[in-house]
Amino acid sequence: MKAARPVGIKAVAAYVPAGRQDLSAELARYGVSLDFLREKTGCLTLARKLPEQDTSDLAVEALRALESGHAGVLRNAGLLIVVTQNGDNAGLPHASALVHGKLELGPDVAAFDISLGCSGWVYGLSIAKAFMEANGIEEGLLVTADPYSKIIDPHDRDTALLFGDAATATWLSANEPVWLPGVFAFGTDGSRAADLQVGEEGTLHMNGRGVLNFSATRVPACIRRTLELNAITMDEVDRVVLHQGSRYICKLIGERIGAAEKTPFLAEDTGNTVSSSIPLILARQACDDDRTIVVAGFGVGLSWAATVLRRVRK
Amino acid sequence: MKAARPVGIKAVAAYVPAGRQDLSAELARYGVSLDFLREKTGCLTLARKLPEQDTSDLAVEALRALESGHAGVLRNAGLLIVVTQNGDNAGLPHASALVHGKLELGPDVAAFDISLGCSGWVYGLSIAKAFMEANGIEEGLLVTADPYSKIIDPHDRDTALLFGDAATATWLSANEPVWLPGVFAFGTDGSRAADLQVGEEGTLHMNGRGVLNFSATRVPACIRRTLELNAITMDEVDRVVLHQGSRYICKLIGERIGAAEKTPFLAEDTGNTVSSSIPLILARQACDDDRTIVVAGFGVGLSWAATVLRRVRK
Repeated sequence: MKAARPVGIKAVAAYVPAGRQDLSAELARYGVSLDFLREKTGCLTLARKLPEQDTSDLAVEALRALESGHAGVLRNAGLLIVVTQNGDNAGLPHASALVHGKLELGPDVAAFDISLGCSGWVYGLSIAKAFMEANGIEEGLLVTADPYSKIIDPHDRDTALLFGDAATATWLSANEPVWLPGVFAFGTDGSRAADLQVGEEGTLHMNGRGVLNFSATRVPACIRRTLELNAITMDEVDRVVLHQGSRYICKLIGERIGAAEKTPFLAEDTGNTVSSSIPLILARQACDDDRTIVVAGFGVGLSWAATVLRRVRK
Repeated sequence: MKAARPVGIKAVAAYVPAGRQDLSAELARYGVSLDFLREKTGCLTLARKLPEQDTSDLAVEALRALESGHAGVLRNAGLLIVVTQNGDNAGLPHASALVHGKLELGPDVAAFDISLGCSGWVYGLSIAKAFMEANGIEEGLLVTADPYSKIIDPHDRDTALLFGDAATATWLSANEPVWLPGVFAFGTDGSRAADLQVGEEGTLHMNGRGVLNFSATRVPACIRRTLELNAITMDEVDRVVLHQGSRYICKLIGERIGAAEKTPFLAEDTGNTVSSSIPLILARQACDDDRTIVVAGFGVGLSWAATVLRRVRK
């Protein structure tokens, strides 16, 4: 029953809602300058779903975007994972079941959600690949959909300027994948879980300084370890695709790993889209000429994960 | 990095809160007879956590119970999974991060939650095993903790008579495991997700007839397929450990697979403990003399999963 061949990434698609909150028009409301948005958060507009769109709807849109470029990909999938911490119906049932129903998929599909925040896509990549290879599933779907607008207090400057809504769909396949993941590094510091949590009133609280300190130390160390585990140097890496926490944190991590010029920030128009931020960059074809990428996710938990993606075909 | 040896189950521990709701003292309130409780639901008392205990607290208790019999098991774990759809803090952060913090585990632990209901332990077993083998993690922890008392409306007869609170901790190891899982079968019918869901007011709604019909058809078929996939017959199976949905459903499935006498119902004093129901039976040493067990979980999603567990040492 073991899949004969390794599972890798075949394609990535994304859904970014058309709606935008234009922060540059709300500077006085938040008591910030345009320079602060440009240099610190890096986000000038935040993608916003419609009020009537729920998490599973965003996931379905991302999967439809994937299907539109790759007919049959949904029907052939034997695995459907949704990474989210903000499912419909307070998370019961899991969003993957709702997506399964909305897309009228067949009964022989393994479906579950993974609850992780900004490290979720990297973790999910390993979970999906391992599960598919172990269970002989040749085609699978890894979806991210964690619309923080559901849990943001618009009066809370710590969070209201950062997060945007989006969803992505990653097609995983044992049949001629384009990118193969290497060895993964994972970590958790639950002693700092309170740095990013939902409070009793149902909105997100963030200790910005705590998250920044965590990101600036754990993530460079995790990336260095990932390079070691995969026996490569930063010279051999074409691009470092970080979770797009903020422009400032991406710049800082890029400098600390000696790869500032390879470490883009590409969330100016969307905001930090949580577990969708890394696959969103892949979906936007920002890495089309690259052969070796480091991906690193970090956030809620606190949690982090990284791996190397190697291109094995065009 | 591949683990040289297959990962299996080394031990299972459980935490059942001491509190009980005694349904036999509330027959008039719910308009049911003692015979109904005895023959249909099968649950005379329901385990109830203290109001101040949250999901991560139950998980910690189950892990401490595991540690008390197997010193060092927590410290050595490289993976911590919590299966839940009712985490602390509305599920953000994931319960596994909170548990990681409360137990002061080290930073090199991969931790995430799986969002599944009554099929969760069986799915989780495959997810954990595959993840550990793929990432070279030799010791891991699979926790179930889904206290439905957080979401039950005590006036709703469809749900108030069924569900109990508990948590379990399964020690997974590549080092001399006791039980090795065979081939798994998984399935999903998201078109019926509304049969078990949380409504806008935050409580669980169940279409009892829908869930019963689903369980009576999908689960026997899934078990038959699992036997086929593992190339064994029911004669070779010592016990069928079903999710303890109700006495009636366990009896019905047992009859439909021709194994009524091998299919126990052991939730009289706890109630249906969701994803904890199957490992709770293993933790209670109900299978200590068995060599071959079928395990089958089914519920929220709707979702189902089964596999065969083979004893490889005492």
